[in-house]
Amino acid sequence: MEELVPGNSLICDSPQEGRELAITLARKSIKAVQPDSEVLKAGRLKYADDPGALIDAAHVVAIEFATIAAANHYWREPAWKRGYRPDTRG
Amino acid sequence: MEELVPGNSLICDSPQEGRELAITLARKSIKAVQPDSEVLKAGRLKYADDPGALIDAAHVVAIEFATIAAANHYWREPAWKRGYRPDTRG
Amino acid sequence: MEELVPGNSLICDSPQEGRELAITLARKSIKAVQPDSEVLKAGRLKYADDPGALIDAAHVVAIEFATIAAANHYWREPAWKRGYRPDTRG
Amino acid sequence: MEELVPGNSLICDSPQEGRELAITLARKSIKAVQPDSEVLKAGRLKYADDPGALIDAAHVVAIEFATIAAANHYWREPAWKRGYRPDTRG
Amino acid sequence: MEELVPGNSLICDSPQEGRELAITLARKSIKAVQPDSEVLKAGRLKYADDPGALIDAAHVVAIEFATIAAANHYWREPAWKRGYRPDTRG
Amino acid sequence: MEELVPGNSLICDSPQEGRELAITLARKSIKAVQPDSEVLKAGRLKYADDPGALIDAAHVVAIEFATIAAANHYWREPAWKRGYRPDTRG
Repeated sequence: MEELVPGNSLICDSPQEGRELAITLARKSIKAVQPDSEVLKAGRLKYADDPGALIDAAHVVAIEFATIAAANHYWREPAWKRGYRPDTRG
Repeated sequence: MEELVPGNSLICDSPQEGRELAITLARKSIKAVQPDSEVLKAGRLKYADDPGALIDAAHVVAIEFATIAAANHYWREPAWKRGYRPDTRG
Repeated sequence: MEELVPGNSLICDSPQEGRELAITLARKSIKAVQPDSEVLKAGRLKYADDPGALIDAAHVVAIEFATIAAANHYWREPAWKRGYRPDTRG
Repeated sequence: MEELVPGNSLICDSPQEGRELAITLARKSIKAVQPDSEVLKAGRLKYADDPGALIDAAHVVAIEFATIAAANHYWREPAWKRGYRPDTRG
Repeated sequence: MEELVPGNSLICDSPQEGRELAITLARKSIKAVQPDSEVLKAGRLKYADDPGALIDAAHVVAIEFATIAAANHYWREPAWKRGYRPDTRG
Repeated sequence: MEELVPGNSLICDSPQEGRELAITLARKSIKAVQPDSEVLKAGRLKYADDPGALIDAAHVVAIEFATIAAANHYWREPAWKRGYRPDTRG
């Protein structure tokens, strides 16, 4: 299957990065279910100005973000991350 | 991508702030999916008096809030926060 | 923004209070998204006898309650709460 | 507000009781949103043979049950409960 | 109320059993809301070839499974279960 | 019931594998509810270019992934896994 998780890690530096990853994961799920970009582009025209669909999309982002935020201990404390990023461990 | 998390932190002082942040996160998700403000304004006319859409919007806020509340240990104890806000640590 | 969390706390004395708070949070979310009471009153006529909308509303209450119940350690043990209510600490 | 949680406790003896409580909580949420029994009875006729609505109802039960199961430590170990039911403590 | 949880336990031996239990719980919820098998059979004809309804059904299974997986510590370690099944304790 | 969880385990090596498993679990749920492949193929034609259905499908994947990510401790630390894979324990 194509790449579904950029960098193959849920660990990221900040809530902003976590939100961006959540949006990416949701988009890649849709791509995995419907790989045809032309179909997706046509579909975008349908939902992009449909408030209901936009709210549903935000709903999926909220669920993906909940997982990513938990994975990153909610970015509570910078110190925690050193233990999770092998490359950043002193 | 534009700013998705004001202050780039989930840590806030109270449930009220947490609710406000949840609403903001949900709105910014929609903006990230549909950046065109004119489209969003037109969409608002459609959903703003549609009970089903309003309930769906409240649903997304509830999920975002669940994440923010967990991040803030449900604001159970004022003392916990000192450990999470670098700037407030004595 | 207007008051979104009565008493600005998720800590309450019992599951019953927790359910009431969950319903209040859901309602205040909708009010925050659509502040116009007249629009909300008209909307109520539409959804109040629509089983699908009532089930969706119950769905939001269930999610808000999940957060509130976790915040209150599921009201498992009366003793736990003394530690969370500054005013009730001996 | 009327009684929303029978016995005002989430602690129950088994998953079966937990499922029953979940169904009761969902029903009482709907009653709290729409107190008029006649309206609810008429609504039942609409959704009781609508597969989509029945699935949505099962969805709410699943979320309420997730909260109740967590409250009861998933009924993993009979011993745990003695600590939560004041009346059952030796 | 009729049996809602086979064996009245969430503890099972593997993710496969957990998935089967999740599907059973979802089905029994629907049966508890609509006990009339004839109505359910007729309803099956409506949703069984409706992709939207099938996705909604899979959604409920996913939520039930999340609860069952947490109950079984995600079947991480065979050893954990000995402590939860009274009959399997040495 | 047919195989619902490949390898009968939620433990996998990376977020990418976790996403793939989440998509597989969701698909197998739908197959368990509607075993007739011809019906599913016909259904695919209906939902594969329907943005709303694609978003709903992504929603189910997000929930399945949340469970799988928790099962794998969010793949925070390679070391954790040795304790969960009997075959990889030294």
